[in-house]
Amino acid sequence: MKILLIVCDGMGDRPCEELAGKTPLEAAYTPNLDLLASEGMCGLMDTIGVGVRPGSDTSHLSLFGYDPKEYYTGRGPFEAAGAEMQLQEGDLAFRANFGTVDENLVVTDRRAGRIDDVTGLCEAVDGLEADGVKFIIKAGTGHRAGLIMRGEGLSHCISDNDSHEEGAKILEVKPLDGTPEAKKTADALNTWVMKAHEILRDHPVNKKRIEDGKPPGNMILERGPGMLGKVPSMQERYGLKAACVAGAGLYKGVAKVVGMDLYTPEGATGKKNTDVKAKVNKAVELLNGEYDYVFIHIKATDNFSHDGDPKGKRDFIEKIDNAVAPLLELKDTVVAVTADHSTPCSIKNHSGDPVPLLIWGPDMRTDDVGEFGERPCGKGILHRIRGLDLMNELLNQTARSRIYGA
Amino acid sequence: MKILLIVCDGMGDRPCEELAGKTPLEAAYTPNLDLLASEGMCGLMDTIGVGVRPGSDTSHLSLFGYDPKEYYTGRGPFEAAGAEMQLQEGDLAFRANFGTVDENLVVTDRRAGRIDDVTGLCEAVDGLEADGVKFIIKAGTGHRAGLIMRGEGLSHCISDNDSHEEGAKILEVKPLDGTPEAKKTADALNTWVMKAHEILRDHPVNKKRIEDGKPPGNMILERGPGMLGKVPSMQERYGLKAACVAGAGLYKGVAKVVGMDLYTPEGATGKKNTDVKAKVNKAVELLNGEYDYVFIHIKATDNFSHDGDPKGKRDFIEKIDNAVAPLLELKDTVVAVTADHSTPCSIKNHSGDPVPLLIWGPDMRTDDVGEFGERPCGKGILHRIRGLDLMNELLNQTARSRIYGA
Repeated sequence: MKILLIVCDGMGDRPCEELAGKTPLEAAYTPNLDLLASEGMCGLMDTIGVGVRPGSDTSHLSLFGYDPKEYYTGRGPFEAAGAEMQLQEGDLAFRANFGTVDENLVVTDRRAGRIDDVTGLCEAVDGLEADGVKFIIKAGTGHRAGLIMRGEGLSHCISDNDSHEEGAKILEVKPLDGTPEAKKTADALNTWVMKAHEILRDHPVNKKRIEDGKPPGNMILERGPGMLGKVPSMQERYGLKAACVAGAGLYKGVAKVVGMDLYTPEGATGKKNTDVKAKVNKAVELLNGEYDYVFIHIKATDNFSHDGDPKGKRDFIEKIDNAVAPLLELKDTVVAVTADHSTPCSIKNHSGDPVPLLIWGPDMRTDDVGEFGERPCGKGILHRIRGLDLMNELLNQTARSRIYGA
Repeated sequence: MKILLIVCDGMGDRPCEELAGKTPLEAAYTPNLDLLASEGMCGLMDTIGVGVRPGSDTSHLSLFGYDPKEYYTGRGPFEAAGAEMQLQEGDLAFRANFGTVDENLVVTDRRAGRIDDVTGLCEAVDGLEADGVKFIIKAGTGHRAGLIMRGEGLSHCISDNDSHEEGAKILEVKPLDGTPEAKKTADALNTWVMKAHEILRDHPVNKKRIEDGKPPGNMILERGPGMLGKVPSMQERYGLKAACVAGAGLYKGVAKVVGMDLYTPEGATGKKNTDVKAKVNKAVELLNGEYDYVFIHIKATDNFSHDGDPKGKRDFIEKIDNAVAPLLELKDTVVAVTADHSTPCSIKNHSGDPVPLLIWGPDMRTDDVGEFGERPCGKGILHRIRGLDLMNELLNQTARSRIYGA
């Protein structure tokens, strides 16, 4: 049997006054998801732990069965992998932004006027060395980039150079522990930041932007340093040939790190305008083909929450419901629908509230839950499980688990 | 948002025949607690782990988010802190009792006739040294005292001198492992016990007691040795300015060790006659002031259980319910009401049954539970969590959690 996991980012929510005391998921008209819920098993899930506010990176690792305590040191490697950079063991990776600084290195725009393509700027500094460390950079979407430091003896225990506020000078990167590795890493990064700044300052792209009255992308801001150790693939770990259908970089990155093949169908933008049907159709195609496990990531639910827009979130969930209709025809497949974390519209940010979970398939116990929603799922037969339990449960339901003991 | 935690000691119970098959909490008329439950979230909580019988010290550490596996070696330091003794890192602390021994060191009364004040006796031996170790002792309530050994290289791995039975000789303290620290500690304690006995034997207070036909407090019985390592305060750990409103020493001690300020309003006796309203009012005053987190401890529920008195326990719970009415007016505060452990009246001692838990606040999912009780809470949306989860959940509900990951 095969596995399809659909993660609707930040879908879990709290009761909203605008929705007559329902959550967006509870308020949405979702006949297809309700049918999956009523034929399957429901529950609540703490993707990290009870009350713990998950990041998107750590929660996805957990959903794939990889304990973040073991595999996570920072977001950088997942962003870099999502930008299709090739990571090697011992690489230190960052999330990077092109921003604008003045002659005193004061940040005047953290996103360089939301510059829409930094490919040329990245090419100008890619491969630069500083203090014997090689710096590899690749353009991401908009002002974003992936950055990798490659060299002997690096450490992720360093601070950011990004002050996270405009009007302040960029920060000197500092070692966060007393190891020579952290000191070496901080020193090399500080050297490189200024080397890169000197190249970018005079780059034709930036000269043109200044002429056009736009802020130049003359400073690279780094954060989220992380180092990847050896990560066994889902094939090695579970015997699953796995694929990811996603539009947004981070989720592709986590999927790639655990060995999934990446697919981004046309129209899958990772934004509110994304084509959910195209994603579901691509997933069905992959499941009908050679893949054992397909992960679909849908980002926009979280975007509506960050905007504090419960009605928009409700409507988008109805769009998801409409798109998942073909799943009801799936044979020999266990489908799980859930979220990576809750993002209540009331607080516009991730919370530690558990997420709703439904698991549907041909041969399982059922419960009385007939509606997919946070509070209905709270009455389901799965009770309250952890994110790290999900992969075990999916392997169990597809008769793919190894026995523990004999 | 602020946090109020109310712990009704030993409140969890089992169905009682005297209460027509209800538990004391279920049988009590509790309109205020029921309203909090119906507007909030309910569940069951294993303060330590499923089926584990918690001590009052370990369970409170857990409720405050401090893993007792990491922070607990014995009860002594918490009793000493509760008696307002100043502990230093490396101190070894004990619970101590004044008892009576005859000329053969046979214990004839473990509580020295429930002597009601041992201040003078403590002063006579306070600061005494033995084998290079300093012994600091301070009177507690009744026959009780806090005892601290201060010196280099002490160990908590030693046995008690308290035989826990009358008619038996006091015990020689023995090292419980093969370390030189344990041997040194046991030797010094044995030396001090006899030195103190010689001073107490001839003390005017005891001479007077013998004249009056009362058993003298001529022997100090020690148990619960424990050593505190470095314990980060709730301010350091969670950014919470925290206060404790309690009458009984141990709970004040645990609260003090984790950095809470202590308040004992007039009438808060830690006994059945305690003024619960005074405690709740003090807590509301502190929450309206500078405190982010207030912990109220109510002891008497447990006392009724130890006496096997379910009706008394029921009535006392009604007194608590009456006292908590002002909480319904609180704004921007999350309130949790629970117990540190169950103490079934049928067994008159702590049990490993989970405790009922309600969490109430302005912005949270709700459930169908409309009555605060063990079995109603068993149907709540919190399901079954652990004591160590509670602080995370309260931080989550007050939007005070840090994100794990990014």
